[in-house]
Amino acid sequence: MRRPLLVPLLAAVALTAAATAVRAQDRLPSWNEGPSKRAIVEFVSKVVRKGGPDFVPPPERIAVFDNDGTLWAEQPIYVQLAFAFDRVKALAPQHPEWQDKEPFASLLKGDVNAALGGGQRAILEIVMATHAGMTTEEFERAVKEWTTTAKHPKTGRLYTEMVYQPMLELLAYLRANSFKTFIVSGGGIDFMRPWVERVYGIPPEQVVGSSIKTKYEAGSGAPKLVRLPEIDFIDDKAGKPVGIYSHIGRRPIAAFGNSDGDQQMLEWTQAGARTRLMMLIRHDDAAREWAYDAQSKIGTFSDALLALAKQNGWSVVSMKTDWRRIFPFERK
Amino acid sequence: MRRPLLVPLLAAVALTAAATAVRAQDRLPSWNEGPSKRAIVEFVSKVVRKGGPDFVPPPERIAVFDNDGTLWAEQPIYVQLAFAFDRVKALAPQHPEWQDKEPFASLLKGDVNAALGGGQRAILEIVMATHAGMTTEEFERAVKEWTTTAKHPKTGRLYTEMVYQPMLELLAYLRANSFKTFIVSGGGIDFMRPWVERVYGIPPEQVVGSSIKTKYEAGSGAPKLVRLPEIDFIDDKAGKPVGIYSHIGRRPIAAFGNSDGDQQMLEWTQAGARTRLMMLIRHDDAAREWAYDAQSKIGTFSDALLALAKQNGWSVVSMKTDWRRIFPFERK
Repeated sequence: MRRPLLVPLLAAVALTAAATAVRAQDRLPSWNEGPSKRAIVEFVSKVVRKGGPDFVPPPERIAVFDNDGTLWAEQPIYVQLAFAFDRVKALAPQHPEWQDKEPFASLLKGDVNAALGGGQRAILEIVMATHAGMTTEEFERAVKEWTTTAKHPKTGRLYTEMVYQPMLELLAYLRANSFKTFIVSGGGIDFMRPWVERVYGIPPEQVVGSSIKTKYEAGSGAPKLVRLPEIDFIDDKAGKPVGIYSHIGRRPIAAFGNSDGDQQMLEWTQAGARTRLMMLIRHDDAAREWAYDAQSKIGTFSDALLALAKQNGWSVVSMKTDWRRIFPFERK
Repeated sequence: MRRPLLVPLLAAVALTAAATAVRAQDRLPSWNEGPSKRAIVEFVSKVVRKGGPDFVPPPERIAVFDNDGTLWAEQPIYVQLAFAFDRVKALAPQHPEWQDKEPFASLLKGDVNAALGGGQRAILEIVMATHAGMTTEEFERAVKEWTTTAKHPKTGRLYTEMVYQPMLELLAYLRANSFKTFIVSGGGIDFMRPWVERVYGIPPEQVVGSSIKTKYEAGSGAPKLVRLPEIDFIDDKAGKPVGIYSHIGRRPIAAFGNSDGDQQMLEWTQAGARTRLMMLIRHDDAAREWAYDAQSKIGTFSDALLALAKQNGWSVVSMKTDWRRIFPFERK
């Protein structure tokens, strides 16, 4: 009597084990085997194991992702800046004074470098001129229109196609394991919200970002929120833990970034009591994407950050060796 | 051949219709039959009917709730103020200077009215002295401890028991129909987050409220967020649509409030293009709760708000006639 019972039992156990392994395998097909993929799968396996020492209840499975350079490409310039430049051109007919006023004049002549010569101040002027002074709905429409038409200068693809396939798989894998996935980006919260649900499966209410102030106006017409040319919050560096606390109200157990701007978010995540995963993406594939690190103005990955990652045991992903495929539009 | 097929089919249809009706009935047992309950059930039925003219996809089923006076009792004083007063007493040994300094001196002598004689400024001083100057984790611990021990002066119940049973049922009913429920309160966001998940089933990341600033500090020890004595955002009146836009990023289709502070939230909800429900709770039951309206300093429900509700077709709930039961601890 023993054997007929034991055999199917063992077979079932074997099948279950195989199914678990296959599952992770299937869900992260664009990740090559190696320490990065192993770190992800081991972390998730620990967290979901009921009764295990590292089990985390589903409501506390919060994972945060930087956006520029972590979920989508940020070269040759931040996408939001490309949007702002295009907006300057689109709005120029309503602003004849821009023809003689920097940084707009240089921008309208096509000289981006001269326009950016004014540094942070010039960028702020361009952002305020293109992101404020309209209702929230008008701005949302502008973002939606631009993101469904504007093309990347190198690939000719929509910017929303320039997202990283391995990260899309990672987002889906985490959500399949009852994680709630959030964006925590230095980029504008209202620039991301109109398209991230469609592109990443992340709803608007799970986006944390930099913001300008808005004002409620209800008069004779329909009530509206008007965007004001005033910084509300900068969600970068030490701002990221602040933004996480303000919007999420609990500490993440997983954090993914790619630059010095993400250091504090990873530190804050690591300082929690639970099992956790901190991961940095390195842009080291000049052939398939871009190679840049400490010297880059965009997405700076300093030697100090690398040293910190080693010291703290953060995972460092090499796009070149860890990712089988980078963009969804590449041939498999 | 026709009959044998038709009969079970009709039976199935009848069963389905009955099941739908029973379901709403079962889920809102503390609501008396009447226009308020009918408005809720009709709204939800329309929104979830696939292919119907009022169908709303689940991700857009956002419902927002004021907290004080809408989800829990706000008399004789806002609960958060009771917390602040108790904190003053608890912290007094560390602040000998409070013995001679208003509003603390009066408060420590037990004279609340004298302490509040300084108006908004006195309240702000008390709030800052009790809500700032510690880490976010220390504050969270203080709130958790207080909410599990402090008792309401009239009922002797924990404040977290003084929540409205019909609203708990409404929250659950909406969530069962794929709504995402949010709190949008003038109260402190960090005062609510430690207990609302347990009490209302609303996770911390779905709470919008007033806030003070925090600062990230990472030095020799573990990184921490320190609470600063500086207002960050007031989530009341015209601040509510701003807070909704900042935290949720899309317009609610249902909004529930009880006072003048909720007017703009309801207006903003109503101005959306979709089917929507706006509802105000009236405190008109002196026997089972409190009766107060235009004359009350707390939870003011002005005649102007009532006129606006009539003009705009907002539902007005009478606690006296619409609610069979008010608190969970009442006998059924």
